[in-house]
Amino acid sequence: MTSDFKIVNEKLAQAVGILQEQNVDAWLVFARETTLTPDPCVGLIAGMEFTWHSAFLVARTGERIAIVGRFDAENVKAIGGYTQVIPYDESFRPALKDVVARLNPASIALDYSENDPAADGLTHGMYLELMSTFAGTPFAERFVSAERIVGSLRGRKSVTEVERIRQAIRTTEKLYADLGATLAIGQTELEIAGRLTRARKALGLGTSWGEDYCPIVNAGPESVAGHSAPSALKVQPGHLLHLDFGIEQDQYCSDIQRMWYVPAEGESGIPADVARVWAACWKAVDAGAALLRPGAIGWKVDEAARATLVAEGYPEYKHALGHGLGRVAHDGATLLGPRWDRYGQTPYGVVEAGNVFTLELGVEVPGRGYVGLEEDVLVTEDGIEWLSTPQRELWIVGQGH
Amino acid sequence: MTSDFKIVNEKLAQAVGILQEQNVDAWLVFARETTLTPDPCVGLIAGMEFTWHSAFLVARTGERIAIVGRFDAENVKAIGGYTQVIPYDESFRPALKDVVARLNPASIALDYSENDPAADGLTHGMYLELMSTFAGTPFAERFVSAERIVGSLRGRKSVTEVERIRQAIRTTEKLYADLGATLAIGQTELEIAGRLTRARKALGLGTSWGEDYCPIVNAGPESVAGHSAPSALKVQPGHLLHLDFGIEQDQYCSDIQRMWYVPAEGESGIPADVARVWAACWKAVDAGAALLRPGAIGWKVDEAARATLVAEGYPEYKHALGHGLGRVAHDGATLLGPRWDRYGQTPYGVVEAGNVFTLELGVEVPGRGYVGLEEDVLVTEDGIEWLSTPQRELWIVGQGH
Repeated sequence: MTSDFKIVNEKLAQAVGILQEQNVDAWLVFARETTLTPDPCVGLIAGMEFTWHSAFLVARTGERIAIVGRFDAENVKAIGGYTQVIPYDESFRPALKDVVARLNPASIALDYSENDPAADGLTHGMYLELMSTFAGTPFAERFVSAERIVGSLRGRKSVTEVERIRQAIRTTEKLYADLGATLAIGQTELEIAGRLTRARKALGLGTSWGEDYCPIVNAGPESVAGHSAPSALKVQPGHLLHLDFGIEQDQYCSDIQRMWYVPAEGESGIPADVARVWAACWKAVDAGAALLRPGAIGWKVDEAARATLVAEGYPEYKHALGHGLGRVAHDGATLLGPRWDRYGQTPYGVVEAGNVFTLELGVEVPGRGYVGLEEDVLVTEDGIEWLSTPQRELWIVGQGH
Repeated sequence: MTSDFKIVNEKLAQAVGILQEQNVDAWLVFARETTLTPDPCVGLIAGMEFTWHSAFLVARTGERIAIVGRFDAENVKAIGGYTQVIPYDESFRPALKDVVARLNPASIALDYSENDPAADGLTHGMYLELMSTFAGTPFAERFVSAERIVGSLRGRKSVTEVERIRQAIRTTEKLYADLGATLAIGQTELEIAGRLTRARKALGLGTSWGEDYCPIVNAGPESVAGHSAPSALKVQPGHLLHLDFGIEQDQYCSDIQRMWYVPAEGESGIPADVARVWAACWKAVDAGAALLRPGAIGWKVDEAARATLVAEGYPEYKHALGHGLGRVAHDGATLLGPRWDRYGQTPYGVVEAGNVFTLELGVEVPGRGYVGLEEDVLVTEDGIEWLSTPQRELWIVGQGH
């Protein structure tokens, strides 16, 4: 608990700085029954679940005020990061109206966004409740989207957050290494997934995304890369074995793809067709990585990788080169992705120091299977640091790893 | 997976019937990145996580149409409950507009509600996306709240759902029984919580609510009943020991409170002050239970219990007598609670057959601790079935249980 409060306090302090930077007077996080309908920001700036309507107001002045049900008040006080905790019994409305009237902010940012799901935690019903609460006051007209605030707050990982992500990545690499030592021809995708899942559960860890699809295991060319569940397809000579896997450890996630080749009889190295794809994929990832630094625009980083892959003669990947990584695998904010409608404005976002991204792309090799690369990187002041140990060489089934 | 699809198919079939009953042409569930911002209805009618914008349309005619990202289409087809699955690559908009134009519904229910959090899964940003998608079409004016649809759908537990809840309750009662056999004077709340948590984790089970507060353990009069975490307070002679605990097993939850008394030296039975409170609490619960049947109004059930407790000379409990129980501890829909502002319209809801509720209330006994009762019940055609085995007798620490 104490270490979670450490992150909560880091984020609350960051939030005040971001409001000052962005010239916004107040940010209001408003949620209830967070097990059912979580606002992702509640975890970030309160670090616990709430049943009753709960309002968390951060002001540019540095004030941080929580209005919560009486049963929760002591827990919120224990965080130490709120300058005022106001408990209520029957209605949150009087306290919220009083506090907002006193702060008198020129604008109040709310967690809604058409673009960034991590900044879109306010439900429409709760939005309507705010509207009815402030109807007839001057504040009804002062609500704006907190998209940029949340993007920066969630995206700029604090020291403790980066430590947690590093830890999750180290654990994942260890799980991959242990798994690699047990791989053999004839094993099914389901067996491999089962072994990795048991090893993960033995450590008491969760998955980075839906358990049914984590890990994704693709053995050979018949396996559909994407979001499909492991099948009875087997590891076979002359085929590729591809895994996509991530864990959640102490609330932070990893997201890493790893690859093995299964030599055919008499084959000593990696065959030429596979080696060419492998090299082209890495060339594309490196082209994107070379542009990734503070100030870069998301889609331009993706475009560098995408264009490189196409220039090498391979089709475009059907997803983004990279997404933010943190409390969940898809952590929101700027996307290193193409300007497709379904990505909204997220590819137009600006990369900031402290952002953690995946870098991932892949190509199908006819008759072999899917080559997919995915590493996790931290954006530093002048470029990137690889948080995962890049898999520069394709591993061979039966030779450890 | 297969058994989850069983529930999904039960709920999809139920949904069509509810639309017919309530005279609504179409219900649209619209979500993205459901790990971050889940709509509770997605689990109910699709049973998996989605990254890209995903739209699930149920029509009164019986049509059930899913519009999902290409990677997810095969998984959704595998459910078997959708009459049409439409994959998209770059934008969900053309397919969604086409389908809605073809169905031409007089009204389209959306998951927003000021009252019921379980019916309030549509984020405000996603609401705005729908508005921009349908701007300039006649459908822009046809959106309504799905509050009543979701209340009935989520509230009327299917056969498989009731089985799952029974199973979670049986497991919880077994965990309580095992714990009871190990309780002794001098143990701290933290030790007791730790033991129960280890036993739960050994079974690979989750908690019904936030792990830090599940179980709640209250040893003696200094412990604050409510949402507080276990402390270093010890089990002591002459005191009460109170636990509030629930597990999640196969996606369904239990929520049960259990009580022990710690005899003082030379004491053989339950002292009179404790026995009086115990009897009054049960009298109040039974008064509520007597009114609980299809057609009952939520607040009236609560009021019967509340008035009984007050007539016995004890203060009102500061919460609702009962809440829906299912996929989460607070499962939404009708609340057996007082007409307080923070409960919105939920106490005005009508009880339906198939609803599962908690029945819970409590009283502080000066110098002893907190007496809290909580059982889980199923609403049948003409009353209730107790799903948990009611704890009619206060247990004694050191005498098993």
